[in-house]
Amino acid sequence: MRLIETARAPNPRRVRIFLAEKGIEIPTEQVDLGALEHKKPEFAERNPMRRVPVLVFDDGSTLSETVAICRYFEETQPDPPLMGRDARGKAEVEMWQRRMELEFLYPIMHTFRHTHPHMAQLEVPQVAEWGEANRPRVLKMIEFLDAELAERQFIAGDEYTIADITALVAADFMKPAKIERPDSLANLARWYDEVSSRPSAKA
Amino acid sequence: MRLIETARAPNPRRVRIFLAEKGIEIPTEQVDLGALEHKKPEFAERNPMRRVPVLVFDDGSTLSETVAICRYFEETQPDPPLMGRDARGKAEVEMWQRRMELEFLYPIMHTFRHTHPHMAQLEVPQVAEWGEANRPRVLKMIEFLDAELAERQFIAGDEYTIADITALVAADFMKPAKIERPDSLANLARWYDEVSSRPSAKA
Repeated sequence: MRLIETARAPNPRRVRIFLAEKGIEIPTEQVDLGALEHKKPEFAERNPMRRVPVLVFDDGSTLSETVAICRYFEETQPDPPLMGRDARGKAEVEMWQRRMELEFLYPIMHTFRHTHPHMAQLEVPQVAEWGEANRPRVLKMIEFLDAELAERQFIAGDEYTIADITALVAADFMKPAKIERPDSLANLARWYDEVSSRPSAKA
Repeated sequence: MRLIETARAPNPRRVRIFLAEKGIEIPTEQVDLGALEHKKPEFAERNPMRRVPVLVFDDGSTLSETVAICRYFEETQPDPPLMGRDARGKAEVEMWQRRMELEFLYPIMHTFRHTHPHMAQLEVPQVAEWGEANRPRVLKMIEFLDAELAERQFIAGDEYTIADITALVAADFMKPAKIERPDSLANLARWYDEVSSRPSAKA
């Protein structure tokens, strides 16, 4: 088994942190997105969506989509649980994971992909107006998160979960997207310091 | 338990079809998106993301996000399984569900929300150029799906799953988004006829 990924991209990092929290080590193979390696026909055979990461099993079959890869490892090695414990808990974690993805990480990605000059060859067409429309959504989301984190330790409750992983990767991706986190958001800062000082954050 | 939803919106329909496939009936309460009811403060207490559907439990607590609501029912009533059987199966269904959502339903939604005059008060700012940029992605996706469906009965394999539900809702949402499905896509048409003739499709 090996993971085809790109060290600097946010989605592969979500999988790496997830695996580090589980204590799972698997070999990785790098794809150079800058050199458009994922646009080559060989790559489409691994993932027709032409995205990283892709998990390759020993029989050559593949699995893509960040959260699907995480799900596979959650099912095969449930301990520690990162996607919830009982029915309600699993649903709550999924809700928060999706909020962090759809309303936090993706608006940052859209800002980055549609406003950064380096992305012009990857995001066609780049729509600057759309990129800029996402910027205030990110700020609104981190204010919301700051209020939520006044009441609990982690994004989805009192346990560290995949929702924290998605949120941490999003928070760190604000930098390349040139979106600044206001210093006034003290609860968010407390949470950020806590999750980013876990050994998995270096993954 | 009750479901707060909007009859005509695509995400609530995903939950209704999911419940119909499971044979679960729960009361619904309608929210008028046209009258901006979901923008009122009362609604934010149910879902701060201000989206439907929202599941309200008997103790008044809530759960939102379409797929999280489906997950709750998958866990509490596993039969028939709509989100996969074993570890690999669950991961495969999640992969296909996400592809149908991120690369099929969402591009249609972006086209609709950013180009339809009726959406001008809900999608602020409307970015027509972004809406139009999504249209060719939808056509590319249905061509891809047509090729995939030459080899198997359903989106994620030989069983009907949540991936078919997301894809069916997406396919039907092409009409309001004014994106036409080419007649040449015979495998897609075969699949569409099959899933839309299931009783659950009327939900």
